[in-house]
Amino acid sequence: MGAGFSVEERLREFLKDDIGWGDITSEALIDDGQMAKGRLYFREDGVAAGLDEVATIFRILGCEVNAIMRDGSSVSRDQTLMEINGPAKALLAGERTALNILGRMAGIATTVSKIAAQVSKVNQSTKVAATRKTLPGFGELDKKAVVLGGGDTHRFRLDDCVLIKDNHLALLPSITEAVRAARSAVSFTKKIEVEIESLEGAVEAAEAGADIIMFDNMPPGEIRGCLARLSELGLKEGRVYEASGGITPENVGEYAASGMDVISMGSLTHSVRALDVKLEIEMV
Amino acid sequence: MGAGFSVEERLREFLKDDIGWGDITSEALIDDGQMAKGRLYFREDGVAAGLDEVATIFRILGCEVNAIMRDGSSVSRDQTLMEINGPAKALLAGERTALNILGRMAGIATTVSKIAAQVSKVNQSTKVAATRKTLPGFGELDKKAVVLGGGDTHRFRLDDCVLIKDNHLALLPSITEAVRAARSAVSFTKKIEVEIESLEGAVEAAEAGADIIMFDNMPPGEIRGCLARLSELGLKEGRVYEASGGITPENVGEYAASGMDVISMGSLTHSVRALDVKLEIEMV
Amino acid sequence: MGAGFSVEERLREFLKDDIGWGDITSEALIDDGQMAKGRLYFREDGVAAGLDEVATIFRILGCEVNAIMRDGSSVSRDQTLMEINGPAKALLAGERTALNILGRMAGIATTVSKIAAQVSKVNQSTKVAATRKTLPGFGELDKKAVVLGGGDTHRFRLDDCVLIKDNHLALLPSITEAVRAARSAVSFTKKIEVEIESLEGAVEAAEAGADIIMFDNMPPGEIRGCLARLSELGLKEGRVYEASGGITPENVGEYAASGMDVISMGSLTHSVRALDVKLEIEMV
Amino acid sequence: MGAGFSVEERLREFLKDDIGWGDITSEALIDDGQMAKGRLYFREDGVAAGLDEVATIFRILGCEVNAIMRDGSSVSRDQTLMEINGPAKALLAGERTALNILGRMAGIATTVSKIAAQVSKVNQSTKVAATRKTLPGFGELDKKAVVLGGGDTHRFRLDDCVLIKDNHLALLPSITEAVRAARSAVSFTKKIEVEIESLEGAVEAAEAGADIIMFDNMPPGEIRGCLARLSELGLKEGRVYEASGGITPENVGEYAASGMDVISMGSLTHSVRALDVKLEIEMV
Amino acid sequence: MGAGFSVEERLREFLKDDIGWGDITSEALIDDGQMAKGRLYFREDGVAAGLDEVATIFRILGCEVNAIMRDGSSVSRDQTLMEINGPAKALLAGERTALNILGRMAGIATTVSKIAAQVSKVNQSTKVAATRKTLPGFGELDKKAVVLGGGDTHRFRLDDCVLIKDNHLALLPSITEAVRAARSAVSFTKKIEVEIESLEGAVEAAEAGADIIMFDNMPPGEIRGCLARLSELGLKEGRVYEASGGITPENVGEYAASGMDVISMGSLTHSVRALDVKLEIEMV
Amino acid sequence: MGAGFSVEERLREFLKDDIGWGDITSEALIDDGQMAKGRLYFREDGVAAGLDEVATIFRILGCEVNAIMRDGSSVSRDQTLMEINGPAKALLAGERTALNILGRMAGIATTVSKIAAQVSKVNQSTKVAATRKTLPGFGELDKKAVVLGGGDTHRFRLDDCVLIKDNHLALLPSITEAVRAARSAVSFTKKIEVEIESLEGAVEAAEAGADIIMFDNMPPGEIRGCLARLSELGLKEGRVYEASGGITPENVGEYAASGMDVISMGSLTHSVRALDVKLEIEMV
Repeated sequence: MGAGFSVEERLREFLKDDIGWGDITSEALIDDGQMAKGRLYFREDGVAAGLDEVATIFRILGCEVNAIMRDGSSVSRDQTLMEINGPAKALLAGERTALNILGRMAGIATTVSKIAAQVSKVNQSTKVAATRKTLPGFGELDKKAVVLGGGDTHRFRLDDCVLIKDNHLALLPSITEAVRAARSAVSFTKKIEVEIESLEGAVEAAEAGADIIMFDNMPPGEIRGCLARLSELGLKEGRVYEASGGITPENVGEYAASGMDVISMGSLTHSVRALDVKLEIEMV
Repeated sequence: MGAGFSVEERLREFLKDDIGWGDITSEALIDDGQMAKGRLYFREDGVAAGLDEVATIFRILGCEVNAIMRDGSSVSRDQTLMEINGPAKALLAGERTALNILGRMAGIATTVSKIAAQVSKVNQSTKVAATRKTLPGFGELDKKAVVLGGGDTHRFRLDDCVLIKDNHLALLPSITEAVRAARSAVSFTKKIEVEIESLEGAVEAAEAGADIIMFDNMPPGEIRGCLARLSELGLKEGRVYEASGGITPENVGEYAASGMDVISMGSLTHSVRALDVKLEIEMV
Repeated sequence: MGAGFSVEERLREFLKDDIGWGDITSEALIDDGQMAKGRLYFREDGVAAGLDEVATIFRILGCEVNAIMRDGSSVSRDQTLMEINGPAKALLAGERTALNILGRMAGIATTVSKIAAQVSKVNQSTKVAATRKTLPGFGELDKKAVVLGGGDTHRFRLDDCVLIKDNHLALLPSITEAVRAARSAVSFTKKIEVEIESLEGAVEAAEAGADIIMFDNMPPGEIRGCLARLSELGLKEGRVYEASGGITPENVGEYAASGMDVISMGSLTHSVRALDVKLEIEMV
Repeated sequence: MGAGFSVEERLREFLKDDIGWGDITSEALIDDGQMAKGRLYFREDGVAAGLDEVATIFRILGCEVNAIMRDGSSVSRDQTLMEINGPAKALLAGERTALNILGRMAGIATTVSKIAAQVSKVNQSTKVAATRKTLPGFGELDKKAVVLGGGDTHRFRLDDCVLIKDNHLALLPSITEAVRAARSAVSFTKKIEVEIESLEGAVEAAEAGADIIMFDNMPPGEIRGCLARLSELGLKEGRVYEASGGITPENVGEYAASGMDVISMGSLTHSVRALDVKLEIEMV
Repeated sequence: MGAGFSVEERLREFLKDDIGWGDITSEALIDDGQMAKGRLYFREDGVAAGLDEVATIFRILGCEVNAIMRDGSSVSRDQTLMEINGPAKALLAGERTALNILGRMAGIATTVSKIAAQVSKVNQSTKVAATRKTLPGFGELDKKAVVLGGGDTHRFRLDDCVLIKDNHLALLPSITEAVRAARSAVSFTKKIEVEIESLEGAVEAAEAGADIIMFDNMPPGEIRGCLARLSELGLKEGRVYEASGGITPENVGEYAASGMDVISMGSLTHSVRALDVKLEIEMV
Repeated sequence: MGAGFSVEERLREFLKDDIGWGDITSEALIDDGQMAKGRLYFREDGVAAGLDEVATIFRILGCEVNAIMRDGSSVSRDQTLMEINGPAKALLAGERTALNILGRMAGIATTVSKIAAQVSKVNQSTKVAATRKTLPGFGELDKKAVVLGGGDTHRFRLDDCVLIKDNHLALLPSITEAVRAARSAVSFTKKIEVEIESLEGAVEAAEAGADIIMFDNMPPGEIRGCLARLSELGLKEGRVYEASGGITPENVGEYAASGMDVISMGSLTHSVRALDVKLEIEMV
């Protein structure tokens, strides 16, 4: 994700949004020739995410970047992540945008990593996934942070996987018919997921050939029952099972124990606590 | 803020980012002629923010919007905020982007509103302000949400107010010299703020004619002492005083009590809990 | 596909590319108030595709559009597809861009439709698919035309389905390992396709759990043998089989007869014969 | 044509359109450090066109490009056109977009070159020209390919040459009046072309001072008669004569023999057969 | 020129540049519901140009526009040009951008009109033309203003007419060779202009078949001599003659008298005095 | 101002606007390998402004730039400002756009510098300021030129300083109320300016706590009286005083003598005489 050249354009937009017609403070106070070096670190333990973007930002502004840690690494408080050398004006102009991106992405990656570790203790084959509840304009970076934290991106957009919800089902005679219609209209390269709320729904979706079945807002016990029944009916194999809705760090273990392949949580990206990040700048 | 026509373009980008080459699920399952109506509400009490943007999104998609509550209103759980009528496909295509914006903006406004209320109980003239720790690409909407929650935006960008920090001061002989240099280089239409960490700094900044003095990471007691001393020296009047750094919902009251004009908190925008928002869609 | 508001922006770019600083001929010769009406039709039988885009173009230019036929319909030579009323200048300014789009899209849809009909006679369950050999900047419209002609879009982009080719396999110990690595790294919402060139490859890919197996440049007879062997091994079910490479209108029937689920042809979009389209303009 | 920096932006758009949020296959299977080299060649004889664009694409993606053949050269099957060295991921990410551009542009150049050769055998001073029937969004590259094949671009846009057609003439009392009105309204830097369908039209256009006279859908014999008559009347000199409409590779020689300066064919760009192009990638 | 939909996008950019994140003054002081009406007029006599653009700006901002005068009209001081009704905030937000455009365009049109009148008195068939010395980003509107003032746009861009200057001639054996090379390389739809500095140059350019001959920085007397000599040689007919360089309102009459077809002046667009324009706003 | 990376994008747009699909003259006449060098100078004395932009333009086009003078320097006629080496085609393609920018920016800087010198002779502490009467799309560069000439930018946009005008006052009971309302609604980081037309207005604005008071269209004598009265009332200190409206190079000295802090003139940017600039190109 995040092929350099394509994200770079967005990063330029972010910088322009923050800089406007110039960093009037630095322009007033700092000589063009004044050089500085920056040391980037976290003020708490966490998982690195956003370092590539920070490096690109400072390169856009004419700095040299020495990457020490890689995105996806677990990093301790105070550990140096990157050194940046360049004009003092450039470091100051990029500082806030860079830290805003890094703080959010590392915040996401750190949380995902913690929850994935919890889940993994209970069930090694269960994945933690994000949803489409990402921040508009920042979705690609939110999803990248999820991956760096060890999570699954889930759908990128409305165009890369079918997800049949109750709103769709309300318009069709049955889950069977909905899956059939989707299969016929959609490219063979796309999976079909159905959101169900009962055992009956799960059985029907499985029989209809859904690739993924999502248990929406169902308690772990009930989910476990569904899986058992699907297994008895010989319908369980060849499908992915996802739980979603109402899942918190507190109950995620129970969901993992219920045998889910995937547990998805909107809060991973819609309610992010930024990691505490710092760029220490020293004039040289 | 947010003159319709200018934010509209950004909202279109947001929609394209999420929809990609089409909502393949709805296209497979729903007729073009199928109409639907949506009811927008919060699943918890909060302050409305983002309703204008939600309305614009659905209008872009060809729906009719009936706005019931206005941005900035305090809203109860389950209260209808807006009704949307249009093609079912349009409601489903815009739902997630709209809710993602609304959830974040209302989350910000609700938090700001709560903290502003706390502060107001202690000191009616103290403002709660955001910082530049907004989300890249979403800064204008983050700041708008702060205003709707009753807060102060602080700087929009690096170009609309001078803020002299320790990094700048490290390059100049004194605060006095820094303020003088800024005053000379920067337009008379801009204010000059100085970040200080001691009483001496505060006195020097005031004498130098700073418009705003920011106490950075100073405990409320120390700040109170600074203000008292500035008052004794006849330097307090005609300036704005801001506290920043390490301020939390727990200690914000103490800062308000210390006599600050402005208390700024990065967490208002860098670590947002999205409000729980819902669009109930019914086919018609 | 082609949510109006998102394609509209691209259509505006197309118009600007062709109009430049103005249609100097019409500006010199035609009064602003001069009205005209246009009748759109094909000069040969074909399948309509691009009518939505033509309508949008003339609406952008301030005309009223009366759509008579719908995209996807089979249309006879000379049959009226659309009537357009508006300023003569607007009709003339949009004519060429509109016809260029319509000619290409209808050309694609018509060819796809013919090949799909051929295939269908032999094997009703076989789909004809395009590839990523679309025209840069025109990919979304090329794919839409394929769908309107009754074909399958195949992948939209490199991000919506895994396709493991020989270049990838050259770097990994085995197909098994490649599929395993993809399954682990890629979201559960994406399918995994493997391109194989031999029976052994097909068996290994099936055993490894590939969702789609593509027979690359294999003669129909050999493919038939592969499928038979997979069936014997109990590996055939639950997978999609695609043939690609060297398929022409002449031999496509044989491929269909070989039992393929999908037959994909690059020529459907890389070597398009435009349909002969005409906008008859009459001054009023 | 195609000043690097301006086309580069469009090429970036093309890449983003195809790559989306990432080449998920390569990202799953290939190490960042894995290097590769590519050899670009045609699988049939042809005229090179698009090599500059291919080079730019791979440079955008961080590869080194060694250009061996130049655009405009006649190239044999299997001859190496370019060598590309860089990260395997970059070669794979750019491959399809690069080949799609190259295939189309070389397809156009090759066809133009063949027809120009045919024409040249009959009449050395006759040019083969394209029309405005180019692909929307791809017009500049289509025209560049025409030039590389030895053809004439004709108009770039509606703003660079006046072309008076029957639709315009329907609104004016006479060709004479139309040419006069155009001459008066349009800059002296623009030529004026008139499309005529009869000898009378040709004579009137010539007398009115048209710079270019286009014989629309007239058989070669009739055109020859027109030219002879214009010559007798002393009106032939100082003007360019173009034939257009219904011209095919089969009859183009007759048109050349009729004494035309320019023969224009829409099919050169509206119905392109892509050249068969290949990028052979080897891991290193 | 200036097809509405294409200039509109640029006008939106202009507005965003000026409004930024909002008109903070009006937002603080004026109710959303407050309506206003505006009367647009000149504070000096002049030629209207830019009214279409002003109308578009206010329509973008949600106002109703009643156009009273048309672009290109001669207008007296204080005469009402347009009435605008809408939200007070919208009128105030658009006022400056609208007036900046109108002031410049009307300034250009008025000056062009005056000079054209001077020229016309001396020589009815002489045109006054602008050059490519337009303001970057504003070229299309500058040229439109020239036309509205009765002038000729000259080249739009480097791509719509060949202009061979001394820098080009320095690289080629002769004018003859340069014209021949241009004729061969450039589309038959483009004119070829040669800039000459002596009688010899003029004769050679005419013999070589240049479509336009530009006398660069030559005094009117010398030009007159050149034309006479060309006439004697039978080379004068069928060509356009342009004078350029060092032409001022004071000496333009002499140039007209010298028999020029076109007199071009860079100052028409590079040194514009804005017309004094006013939008009188009244609250309603 | 003018952070390189952000202005660069605009410069690319400017170039594309002028070059279109190619500089057809140079492409026809000049070899790709032909190198040239350029010498940039003024043909009259002036203040350099726009050199950074010129350098960026030629770097975009692939030239090497040797900057000899810096923006903001006073420069004599014929003095070399910059040397440019690169492909002849690149120098010719960028020449006009570069000179158009340089001519305008240096024209502004030179005029500002002259007026600032006049003002400075009378009153060393008075600043000369521009207004928002900049050219749409060129505002940032216009303002940068003002700074390089020694002037003050005044507001960048409607969002960075409050300016209360008569139109706003018409809607509010009093200046006092308007200032109070602005103070309450607008961020503490913004200044508040009030435009007044009488002594009473000035006194009320000062008492209300306006940061800046603008005397609109008042003669210097009256302004002097206002300041004296404000001084008597103890209201003069701590505020900035600006004169605006009807100020010309002829009377600007009187305004300076009246004790103004700032004198603003719209003509500095709305009616610019371009400096006479030249790029001398020599083939090498």
